[in-house]
Amino acid sequence: MKIGVLTSGGDAPGMNAAIRAAVRQADSLGHEAWGIYRGYQGLLDGDMEPLPSRACANILQRGGTMLRTARCKAFHDPDVRAKAAEKLKAAGIEALVVIGGDGSFRAAETLLREHGVACAGIPGTIDNDLPGTDRTLGFDTALNTAVEAIDRIRDTASSHGRLFLVEVMGRASGMLAVHTAIACGAEAVLYPESPDDSYEALVTQLEENWKRGKRSSIVVVAEGDAVGGRAMAVGERLKRDHELDLRVVVLGHVQRGGSPSALDRIWGSRWGSEAVRRLDRGERGFYLGEVAGALVAQPLSRILEPQPVPPGDLGRLVAVLAR
Amino acid sequence: MKIGVLTSGGDAPGMNAAIRAAVRQADSLGHEAWGIYRGYQGLLDGDMEPLPSRACANILQRGGTMLRTARCKAFHDPDVRAKAAEKLKAAGIEALVVIGGDGSFRAAETLLREHGVACAGIPGTIDNDLPGTDRTLGFDTALNTAVEAIDRIRDTASSHGRLFLVEVMGRASGMLAVHTAIACGAEAVLYPESPDDSYEALVTQLEENWKRGKRSSIVVVAEGDAVGGRAMAVGERLKRDHELDLRVVVLGHVQRGGSPSALDRIWGSRWGSEAVRRLDRGERGFYLGEVAGALVAQPLSRILEPQPVPPGDLGRLVAVLAR
Amino acid sequence: MKIGVLTSGGDAPGMNAAIRAAVRQADSLGHEAWGIYRGYQGLLDGDMEPLPSRACANILQRGGTMLRTARCKAFHDPDVRAKAAEKLKAAGIEALVVIGGDGSFRAAETLLREHGVACAGIPGTIDNDLPGTDRTLGFDTALNTAVEAIDRIRDTASSHGRLFLVEVMGRASGMLAVHTAIACGAEAVLYPESPDDSYEALVTQLEENWKRGKRSSIVVVAEGDAVGGRAMAVGERLKRDHELDLRVVVLGHVQRGGSPSALDRIWGSRWGSEAVRRLDRGERGFYLGEVAGALVAQPLSRILEPQPVPPGDLGRLVAVLAR
Amino acid sequence: MKIGVLTSGGDAPGMNAAIRAAVRQADSLGHEAWGIYRGYQGLLDGDMEPLPSRACANILQRGGTMLRTARCKAFHDPDVRAKAAEKLKAAGIEALVVIGGDGSFRAAETLLREHGVACAGIPGTIDNDLPGTDRTLGFDTALNTAVEAIDRIRDTASSHGRLFLVEVMGRASGMLAVHTAIACGAEAVLYPESPDDSYEALVTQLEENWKRGKRSSIVVVAEGDAVGGRAMAVGERLKRDHELDLRVVVLGHVQRGGSPSALDRIWGSRWGSEAVRRLDRGERGFYLGEVAGALVAQPLSRILEPQPVPPGDLGRLVAVLAR
Repeated sequence: MKIGVLTSGGDAPGMNAAIRAAVRQADSLGHEAWGIYRGYQGLLDGDMEPLPSRACANILQRGGTMLRTARCKAFHDPDVRAKAAEKLKAAGIEALVVIGGDGSFRAAETLLREHGVACAGIPGTIDNDLPGTDRTLGFDTALNTAVEAIDRIRDTASSHGRLFLVEVMGRASGMLAVHTAIACGAEAVLYPESPDDSYEALVTQLEENWKRGKRSSIVVVAEGDAVGGRAMAVGERLKRDHELDLRVVVLGHVQRGGSPSALDRIWGSRWGSEAVRRLDRGERGFYLGEVAGALVAQPLSRILEPQPVPPGDLGRLVAVLAR
Repeated sequence: MKIGVLTSGGDAPGMNAAIRAAVRQADSLGHEAWGIYRGYQGLLDGDMEPLPSRACANILQRGGTMLRTARCKAFHDPDVRAKAAEKLKAAGIEALVVIGGDGSFRAAETLLREHGVACAGIPGTIDNDLPGTDRTLGFDTALNTAVEAIDRIRDTASSHGRLFLVEVMGRASGMLAVHTAIACGAEAVLYPESPDDSYEALVTQLEENWKRGKRSSIVVVAEGDAVGGRAMAVGERLKRDHELDLRVVVLGHVQRGGSPSALDRIWGSRWGSEAVRRLDRGERGFYLGEVAGALVAQPLSRILEPQPVPPGDLGRLVAVLAR
Repeated sequence: MKIGVLTSGGDAPGMNAAIRAAVRQADSLGHEAWGIYRGYQGLLDGDMEPLPSRACANILQRGGTMLRTARCKAFHDPDVRAKAAEKLKAAGIEALVVIGGDGSFRAAETLLREHGVACAGIPGTIDNDLPGTDRTLGFDTALNTAVEAIDRIRDTASSHGRLFLVEVMGRASGMLAVHTAIACGAEAVLYPESPDDSYEALVTQLEENWKRGKRSSIVVVAEGDAVGGRAMAVGERLKRDHELDLRVVVLGHVQRGGSPSALDRIWGSRWGSEAVRRLDRGERGFYLGEVAGALVAQPLSRILEPQPVPPGDLGRLVAVLAR
Repeated sequence: MKIGVLTSGGDAPGMNAAIRAAVRQADSLGHEAWGIYRGYQGLLDGDMEPLPSRACANILQRGGTMLRTARCKAFHDPDVRAKAAEKLKAAGIEALVVIGGDGSFRAAETLLREHGVACAGIPGTIDNDLPGTDRTLGFDTALNTAVEAIDRIRDTASSHGRLFLVEVMGRASGMLAVHTAIACGAEAVLYPESPDDSYEALVTQLEENWKRGKRSSIVVVAEGDAVGGRAMAVGERLKRDHELDLRVVVLGHVQRGGSPSALDRIWGSRWGSEAVRRLDRGERGFYLGEVAGALVAQPLSRILEPQPVPPGDLGRLVAVLAR
């Protein structure tokens, strides 16, 4: 069997681990892996070639994706998807391993439903915002990168007795922001799902810290925060209302790359291997995840459900630990 | 209530996160936290003092333990333990938070059983070898440190087309070795619990890699490996039998320190906070852990059970991915 | 002799190394070191205390400054400086070690000239923009931090075939930008002192790279760049004129903190020790530096001279290496 | 002109920067760069091919050498060297860029003297032990790697109040050991060129530290240390004579790899470019270096002179700063 592998959407550390594992597992089971470049766009362009095991040497430790990636809006058009299915048939590729986020999985779901292409999804996004899995590739690396960056900012905050607002990624999810806040010992965190994510609560918290003798503070702001506005806006308002000597840092794309953490390499390896083993056994439409510590598979259609709101426990812990 | 906090046994990254969280959670619930220095030895010596929330500033990101640690063989003597219990009573300390490994928990278990001291255990050891928890503080950091070190060694291995044996820590457990091997893309791994952990299997694997065109190889060896012997011994044998140009690296104590990873900081924070909340609710003898992704508590006596053998799945994956 | 030590202006990695070395060198020569907190502001507030050698344990590896720092505009007022000199006299402090940038050195120069306070300057700023020294504390660390961040961004740039503009610090100097550009393999660099630092030259360079098959590019932009405008402005213009799919990242304060590099620790240690040895020998107004690899001292008044423009050689090398 | 590029001897971070710069500078001057694999051994085997600029993409940030390397004892034989010269002539390669240490440069010197092959040397060795240059590629990276590793060990040393002996590389030179000792704040350093590098001086130093209240100590030991013996031997003796609770860590090959530091990338880039520019101008036998901060060229024959002993100043500073 020929198995195509592609990465789609935003790149995430650990994608290369999944590619390597899928290719080598395919090899060990007697299948032929094909690399499809630049996601669904490359599939449409026929930008693909056989990917032998040795071509995946020395990629495990690299960020980004050796197959490159792209967003492909054209894929919303059913005619375009039909063309993609034909390309696969012409190349003799019977199954796809799709590494990406919710948009990439929805495209895979339509390929399966409309054209019977067997598809295995591997969650690859630093946002950790997919239903049916507690973890996505890249989240642990992005978390550690954000924490390391804020450790550096903490040096300056402490030296100057100054307030910093630090904006982290995460799209509409506060997962990255809340985990970052706990791990860097932030004094407060603003995130979309928070019930008390308000400007007033933040001001109260900062005033209490000041009374406790804290002269410097780090506030983590999720890029998707709706109530307070993004970090720049919150900073402007605090400066205006309270004449605070504060600085705003937007971590931005620094969080997206870098050598993957051990966890992201391990889960990328496990998922890449498992995806191919299930395709080999004849399974046709699923994506992998981790639930309660175990490697699980969900039907591809599960991606159409909304991601449940993360529990606010961790968010509340931030205030307790910031004393 | 006065709550004593101590760290005992080998130090592990994340211990400071747990200390900080326990102290600040105690503070927020109206209790008084006391720091006991150098583990049970310091308890015997009366080396303790109140630990206010502000004393825990800027420790979250530090490796090691601000309370210092020690191994205390004298504690095996019941008379010595009686003296320790008296010290606690004299200081008015009613409960202990003990951060350490199995030996530290066993000592806590006897303090509870013999003298009624309320004890909360927090698993702190890089070896991840405790029953009743899937994770211990420091494991994730040590894993990332080992992987980063082997990434460096890989540069030289590839440049010279050379074989490296790298010994990692883990005492009698292969957890650290197997996870490291997957995450660094090792060509083989030797660990105590492996059914086929034999010198012959290793030689066969290396020969197959050579035939596939791999000119360099990394073999991860658990320090507790029994069959093959430790890395130096395995290396000597391979040199003698096969005249291989190989190098041996013993990572040693480099794996033990360093700024804790995000995960170790988060679990240290969660466990430190939870330990105090449970003591506050009147619980008296338990240790915390993570099982299937959830924060759980086990009775302290559970520490007397043996740690189950880790599943061999991950170990077997190494060979598949080394193609 | 009592010797005061203070850090002033923006914090820089390596300041702690200089503090530690000054304190311990003073101790070994029989002098008493005093720590003055929050720079000249703390001096005015009398915020100072004796600093024994043991108080400097475990700070060598920390970013920021254990003495904290501040900018003190009031110091431009001669009456305020007179008050500061009185504070020193009252405390019996006969000499100052001032760790900071040009503003901090100018303040020291007036203290010496107007009030006869012996002052030793140690260059501490990540901008490397002082006359009379090829190196300042923190430059090497900030350079490595910027390079590491851009290595991460490169992963995403390569994966998406995308252009990134990355703004680095440096105030009016292009030193940090040019060195960063060479070290991260940037396709182009915009910096204030460049003769051909123009928007048009950049566009030409990007077009040539595209013709050579380069699909992703990194352009480093100095924050002090005057011709092209700062990164956001350059990005907006490129998007408007050429409809490029580009991203802008402003590294910001992430560059300022972090554990100092080996070089910054070594020069901080050497300068801290040398400053005190020269004060001990009776020297009264100088600042230290590195010129042509050697540790040198300049008269404090040298700080009033302008910093010579850095040679453009390195800047020109960027284009050659970006092929 | 066809210009061959090879790396020889032990690999060092920054070699790839030099390769990339040489290739792209050649390209920009209209020459054709050829990559010769596995050093002089590959030259003998005819293992070489044209190396276009695009083949050097994404190598700047990688440790090791993309051209691989080897030690080639056969090259001591004049007949073998004659064969190598013929290979070059047959391939039309008129000049060589040799990146390596003293052995590699001596081989180049004979190729020039005996067969008139134009040779440009670029110093690539982590040991920083060449005459005629203050710096070699890889030294700064290895230094930072060693310091980072010892920072981790310091966490455990402080937590346990324990003595660690840490052996670093450097062959017969103490450069790496002394710089590491200053940068990690070691309590003592043993290195070959030290006048007072004796076991007795170390014992005295450790006793003084103990009296000052230091409970933990780090001693850096150069692998080439002659008087005291290597770290294991020193450790055994200290244990036997003084019953100290100490640990020995041999950093080993971890120091050799890893992504190069900014400085190593910059000097690799400058030297690679300069080597080709000089060959282009007709220069025929030189190697590059840094002296007093400036890029300089030495005649190849200079390699036959001994490396001067490094000044002991830095070594003496260790004791002052360890108070």
